[in-house]
Amino acid sequence: MQKVAILGIGQTSIGEHWDKSLREIGGEAAFAALQDAGVDKVDALYVGNMLSPLIDSQNQLGTFLADWIGLWNQEAVKVEAACGSGAAALRVGMMAVAAGEIDSALVVGVEKMTDKAGHDVTAALATAADADYEVEQGVSFVGLNALIMQRYMHEFGWKHADFAPFSINAHANAMHNPFARLHEKITVERFEKSSMVATPVNLLDASPIGDGAAAVVIVPAEKVASIPGRPRVIIAASASVTDTMAVHSRKDPLFLSAAYESAKRCYEMAGIKPEEIDVFELHDAFSIMSALSLEACGFAERGQGVRLGLENEIAPKGRVPICTRGGLKARGHPVGATGVYQIVEIVQQLRCECNETQVEGAKIGMAQNIGGSGATVLSHILISE
Amino acid sequence: MQKVAILGIGQTSIGEHWDKSLREIGGEAAFAALQDAGVDKVDALYVGNMLSPLIDSQNQLGTFLADWIGLWNQEAVKVEAACGSGAAALRVGMMAVAAGEIDSALVVGVEKMTDKAGHDVTAALATAADADYEVEQGVSFVGLNALIMQRYMHEFGWKHADFAPFSINAHANAMHNPFARLHEKITVERFEKSSMVATPVNLLDASPIGDGAAAVVIVPAEKVASIPGRPRVIIAASASVTDTMAVHSRKDPLFLSAAYESAKRCYEMAGIKPEEIDVFELHDAFSIMSALSLEACGFAERGQGVRLGLENEIAPKGRVPICTRGGLKARGHPVGATGVYQIVEIVQQLRCECNETQVEGAKIGMAQNIGGSGATVLSHILISE
Repeated sequence: MQKVAILGIGQTSIGEHWDKSLREIGGEAAFAALQDAGVDKVDALYVGNMLSPLIDSQNQLGTFLADWIGLWNQEAVKVEAACGSGAAALRVGMMAVAAGEIDSALVVGVEKMTDKAGHDVTAALATAADADYEVEQGVSFVGLNALIMQRYMHEFGWKHADFAPFSINAHANAMHNPFARLHEKITVERFEKSSMVATPVNLLDASPIGDGAAAVVIVPAEKVASIPGRPRVIIAASASVTDTMAVHSRKDPLFLSAAYESAKRCYEMAGIKPEEIDVFELHDAFSIMSALSLEACGFAERGQGVRLGLENEIAPKGRVPICTRGGLKARGHPVGATGVYQIVEIVQQLRCECNETQVEGAKIGMAQNIGGSGATVLSHILISE
Repeated sequence: MQKVAILGIGQTSIGEHWDKSLREIGGEAAFAALQDAGVDKVDALYVGNMLSPLIDSQNQLGTFLADWIGLWNQEAVKVEAACGSGAAALRVGMMAVAAGEIDSALVVGVEKMTDKAGHDVTAALATAADADYEVEQGVSFVGLNALIMQRYMHEFGWKHADFAPFSINAHANAMHNPFARLHEKITVERFEKSSMVATPVNLLDASPIGDGAAAVVIVPAEKVASIPGRPRVIIAASASVTDTMAVHSRKDPLFLSAAYESAKRCYEMAGIKPEEIDVFELHDAFSIMSALSLEACGFAERGQGVRLGLENEIAPKGRVPICTRGGLKARGHPVGATGVYQIVEIVQQLRCECNETQVEGAKIGMAQNIGGSGATVLSHILISE
């Protein structure tokens, strides 16, 4: 398969953008990526989004956004895989370029979630779970993660405070990311005193929703040259893998088998081992997911993901730096956009643009985006050359 | 780009399937296609669907359906382009196979629309239009088509009854399609007396919604051999093109420029002229769309698409056979599934499986699937070898 490179990146800050419409935030990220790539047009647009039909009464988001940015007479389509929609859109764009069907594409992840509040958004997010077998029984998406976390603590003997380092690291890193939603350092005490959402998940275990958009421009790798201060960034591996929709259908609900499988395929494709990953943007929608992702992707033994946090190995100077721009926890989680934010952030690391949270000498980064409670997992390994 | 072949097809009947869930109808079509292809597994699943978040409270439909049919540990994703979702999913699957990323894929278009009724479905369908600039002003999706039809009649001097042949042909052909929603011959008198929906669009100008699913199995063309009675069917051309989202933004609202452009690219790609198309499954969501599609795709002069119906050239024995299995009008229009139904029907024609409505010696067929009021148009040319 022809290799694909990431030529440009763009993003909006994540927040409550009540003064900007869905198309405006999508357009802002798209134009930023085009400008960063130094091009003024592309052959196609792939949009990752989960909630626009429910929150914005808007479907056909590919054409909707193409129209806004003036990309008529070209291909535009929306790709959806719940919270994994962003990386799913990147993967579709990558395959289109790799197939030789198009020569360049814009991939935009966009979500506007804060115009409605409370029950509406919780119900909308629950569409990522199984409507018949999970949601109909009364479980929300937070509830599912709470059940998993509870079981994990019971099974492996961890207490709630042991998860604090994940949130503390994410908040500390977000302090240096101007696009992050939360700029607020937290402590173990603050983490423990935070209000309960669904036992044992409290407010600081959970990532905040938000309005935001991120975008990348992709082209065949052979069209990109590495220039001083701006290495060529290649998508060295990409894999999308599914598990069962419902958590209760899994033999082991504490093992993210789709995360394991998609990371494994990426390692094989890129010809590397987990130890060679310099920076890992994982899908920390809830603190428990950080632990499970680290274990599934080969960075910790079963039940020991938490230890990496306690031993301070997840910080930018640690052995497995995660959430270096704030992660879902503090950068924010505009669901369908998150996967593209992760890619943008890995590119920033490989370009050495991260200042205080730069991982020294980062050459290989992995981003992992998850739809549902581990139901759809997309991994991408990016390499700078 | 590596050529892709259609190895198997499957479909459910279209109707009010209140006794079957969304996953059941999707699975029924998927298993039918796998059986027809003579394979029991594929590498990936691409699902076309528009309304499941709104009508079924279900997102992540790729993984949802993959789980149901037992396709774990593989790629699954949903693709959405309003009523063009089905063909959009086919195109994504085709690019994945062509890129060499996977070796086989199942493409399923699925929609369940009749569990809710009335305003809910009308509001859900209106998400195909521009929420800010069209729907917010009070126009429904039928209303938009009514405005276009009114203007067309005024501009080119046609009267309402002149559109009758489109609906009569579709209903006549559907009589011989066991999967069609409507099995009912109609006449000009019946057409003219039908109740008004939005002037001048009456009930028999409009396609009925429905529950249904259609599926195809695709593989690299080199893996398929032509066998007696079962020719090899190749996707000879594919193009996806956008126009503006809102109808009022177009220089000429009576010309489907995206249909023109996507058909043109397909003709070039396949190296053929419109006259060489033996059968054309167009997107007759409303009778006016048949006229506009025929004109945009080079089968009639501007304003003269209606004439092809009046001269009986659209029947299976005519010069430009359309809606040979009933079209959206009488086969039914389960929106996100329609594009895959069209592909399945072209394959049936190229395999000479259409009995009473068989187009004699059909070798080249085109399917055209439209999202919104001409906002996203996907064309595919299939050739039997």
